[in-house]
Amino acid sequence: MAEELKFPTGLGTSDADSISLLGQDLAADLMGKVGFGELAFWLVARRRPNAGEVRVFEAVLVALADHGFTPTAIAARLTYLSAPDSLQGALAAGLLGGGSRFLGVTEDCGRFLAEALAGGAPDDYPAFATELIATSTGRIPGLGHPVHKVQDPRTPVLIRIAQEEGLYGPHLRLLKAIAAVHPKKLPLNGAGVCGAALADLGLPIEMLRGFALLARAAGLLGQLAEEHRRPVANQIYLTVDRNAVYEP
Amino acid sequence: MAEELKFPTGLGTSDADSISLLGQDLAADLMGKVGFGELAFWLVARRRPNAGEVRVFEAVLVALADHGFTPTAIAARLTYLSAPDSLQGALAAGLLGGGSRFLGVTEDCGRFLAEALAGGAPDDYPAFATELIATSTGRIPGLGHPVHKVQDPRTPVLIRIAQEEGLYGPHLRLLKAIAAVHPKKLPLNGAGVCGAALADLGLPIEMLRGFALLARAAGLLGQLAEEHRRPVANQIYLTVDRNAVYEP
Amino acid sequence: MAEELKFPTGLGTSDADSISLLGQDLAADLMGKVGFGELAFWLVARRRPNAGEVRVFEAVLVALADHGFTPTAIAARLTYLSAPDSLQGALAAGLLGGGSRFLGVTEDCGRFLAEALAGGAPDDYPAFATELIATSTGRIPGLGHPVHKVQDPRTPVLIRIAQEEGLYGPHLRLLKAIAAVHPKKLPLNGAGVCGAALADLGLPIEMLRGFALLARAAGLLGQLAEEHRRPVANQIYLTVDRNAVYEP
Amino acid sequence: MAEELKFPTGLGTSDADSISLLGQDLAADLMGKVGFGELAFWLVARRRPNAGEVRVFEAVLVALADHGFTPTAIAARLTYLSAPDSLQGALAAGLLGGGSRFLGVTEDCGRFLAEALAGGAPDDYPAFATELIATSTGRIPGLGHPVHKVQDPRTPVLIRIAQEEGLYGPHLRLLKAIAAVHPKKLPLNGAGVCGAALADLGLPIEMLRGFALLARAAGLLGQLAEEHRRPVANQIYLTVDRNAVYEP
Repeated sequence: MAEELKFPTGLGTSDADSISLLGQDLAADLMGKVGFGELAFWLVARRRPNAGEVRVFEAVLVALADHGFTPTAIAARLTYLSAPDSLQGALAAGLLGGGSRFLGVTEDCGRFLAEALAGGAPDDYPAFATELIATSTGRIPGLGHPVHKVQDPRTPVLIRIAQEEGLYGPHLRLLKAIAAVHPKKLPLNGAGVCGAALADLGLPIEMLRGFALLARAAGLLGQLAEEHRRPVANQIYLTVDRNAVYEP
Repeated sequence: MAEELKFPTGLGTSDADSISLLGQDLAADLMGKVGFGELAFWLVARRRPNAGEVRVFEAVLVALADHGFTPTAIAARLTYLSAPDSLQGALAAGLLGGGSRFLGVTEDCGRFLAEALAGGAPDDYPAFATELIATSTGRIPGLGHPVHKVQDPRTPVLIRIAQEEGLYGPHLRLLKAIAAVHPKKLPLNGAGVCGAALADLGLPIEMLRGFALLARAAGLLGQLAEEHRRPVANQIYLTVDRNAVYEP
Repeated sequence: MAEELKFPTGLGTSDADSISLLGQDLAADLMGKVGFGELAFWLVARRRPNAGEVRVFEAVLVALADHGFTPTAIAARLTYLSAPDSLQGALAAGLLGGGSRFLGVTEDCGRFLAEALAGGAPDDYPAFATELIATSTGRIPGLGHPVHKVQDPRTPVLIRIAQEEGLYGPHLRLLKAIAAVHPKKLPLNGAGVCGAALADLGLPIEMLRGFALLARAAGLLGQLAEEHRRPVANQIYLTVDRNAVYEP
Repeated sequence: MAEELKFPTGLGTSDADSISLLGQDLAADLMGKVGFGELAFWLVARRRPNAGEVRVFEAVLVALADHGFTPTAIAARLTYLSAPDSLQGALAAGLLGGGSRFLGVTEDCGRFLAEALAGGAPDDYPAFATELIATSTGRIPGLGHPVHKVQDPRTPVLIRIAQEEGLYGPHLRLLKAIAAVHPKKLPLNGAGVCGAALADLGLPIEMLRGFALLARAAGLLGQLAEEHRRPVANQIYLTVDRNAVYEP
């Protein structure tokens, strides 16, 4: 069957002499001239961020990169133990834990705020937040943290950075207002605040989880490099296996 | 069974009030103060890079981030088509193609050079390269490119950036010398040059593939964001399925 | 910290002389005596199926194993092209497409029926189905098929096998009643019928997707063996790449 | 660009009225008539196995399905804990550990024997084995087991089943001869014996790891069903996290 095929893309293309990315000459215009975080923002948002946007964006990625022996870090290390020849498999196994529970609050919080603000930013944030809490069914994503029960140390820092860069927008304002008026006086979860900050940067809501995954990819490389240098996965495995008890 | 358990880590730890990463206070000392690429380097190398090292490192990540409709990009898009609710699965599927063939040259080239230089840097690079070519069995990784048959445009730019930052070390020098004296006059593959540059930064050889994967993670997010906005995966699938021919 | 650890399991345990699985002696009681499908059922359901249940269960697995050049099969082949040294990565990439869209109807249909039947099986299936259609918001999973617009050939065969084995239960009956009374006269999707059959076998609803994945794992091995013997992934890649068009 | 596209396959094809698999009518000729293990063999080997071949093949799959709290089982459970909405991600994470170390011996042993037998089966197995041991550099795959130091209980059973079915061929004979003449008197690893049995069935060597993965897919479903019913992953995570010690 003969047919006319056409696959449009605004990302990378190349021919014998040149490589183009995002309509730029990769070698002449991008390498050495844009940072990696800057490029990641550009690739998803289809626009080049300014310096303030890069600073907030990279602060988010730094905040989300690693949290020690999380389930995803342990899964990546165990996979590296089993299949050391396939680093990509160990990294992928770690990222596959980036779902609804441990890494999802960034996306969930950004989405919740974006939907609440779909009709535009309010004049009176406290009143809007009070109304939102009253009409919400279920938990509000971004409120509360299993470990940081008084304050997540990332929260005030990220809000301050956004303010310094003139990027303290409606999503962050609304989230802060929610915490202020909420009867339970719960602290704001730093990963949720990250979602609000990314939404204030205008990044697409359906990709917010992707930025958490990108940040975590760097953290997982750190975990795997440490596993290579000073392994613990075999001890983790043996700890579980030796304490297994048969119960039908 | 009661036992004494201890899992050492130099990465992330946290308690109720603070989060620590690499021995630093994550909120006070890292967020807004280190870039994302800088942190990725630090996590793997266990030392903070200087500004010149960050520039070379991020130039490598930018060089490797995306190459258009590669097999890995197509696999990620097809997986997103099938399971749009699991962005982590689509990203992981794309990274799983980061193995020996399409993404492996960065690691292979760095490893080849590091092994050749295990006894120390030579005085006479051309003579050393000539000897190395004569004694090597099999292809030398980093020589030749399927598309860029005369010159890979990334090659001279990355070498220039390394020179500008005083980071043009023995791995890059040896690779350049190999290309100069090799009888086939093949161009240096940009992804291989990236491996040499990472090795000159002192990064662990067994993690070089990991940096290619981190770079590709950003590129794949770009691909998935584009697939969300202007999908092509279904057309790719139908192109294959409609032209399937049964042959036993 | 000394602590008492205990990880209960009813699956595999072993010591120096024996291996036990599901409370059985693996070597003496299982190998050569239970079939592979039978064991898969037993592992999930925690009870050994009888011969009729095995026949229906394996008919479902056979029905779902392969459907040619699906997005998941293409993704697996492209991953094998990129990373041929990691068969597990190619298989995993293929399975990651087993999400809501292309492989989800088995689980979705089983779940929909199980929830409808939560109060017990009805006396009058047509009336119950009519009421269910009237009160359902959204599409009913298992109704309609993009290719088999008149009849999915798997549907009557699977229903007949279930009837022959005395396993034509409330889930299959209700699904058939829905199709009969639905105003659109849509055919029953075979993958949805599989979900109803698995539910009638008493298998846990939250694992139904898992059986579709197990079936697909066999199909993907067939795809990868064929890719090894007579590759097409490189041609698929080149078809897309050569017809790429830059559009910002 | 108009072009003639053709993607050959001997697996699944379908049109509006029928589904074909391996040249058979899926609904009329396969469902309810072939077992699932039988189909998996057929898909990879491109020929239908006889009853004896199915028995040996399924005994191998049963032998390899689950071994309790292996690193892959723990990784799958931790991934399910983190992302419970994506069963395919948890299964894929578990399979990604199916690499060189914990699941590789099946493939490695089959490959070693197949290469040794490339010139044909010997007349005198003990002499051939002695010569092979003398000329082998490195470990012989399939000899020795970390837990079963005297005898792996799977070994004699699988050899007996192969003998009963007339499928005790050169790969199994050679492996047994190697163990008999080897100076270290090591037991045969059951997973290695599985590789020899699969090779004697004429299955392609490069797919042997794939059968171990298929078997493990069933075991992992059992692990995930148990994790759903009686979770341990959170306790595993907390055991590691609470015993983390910062060491630079």
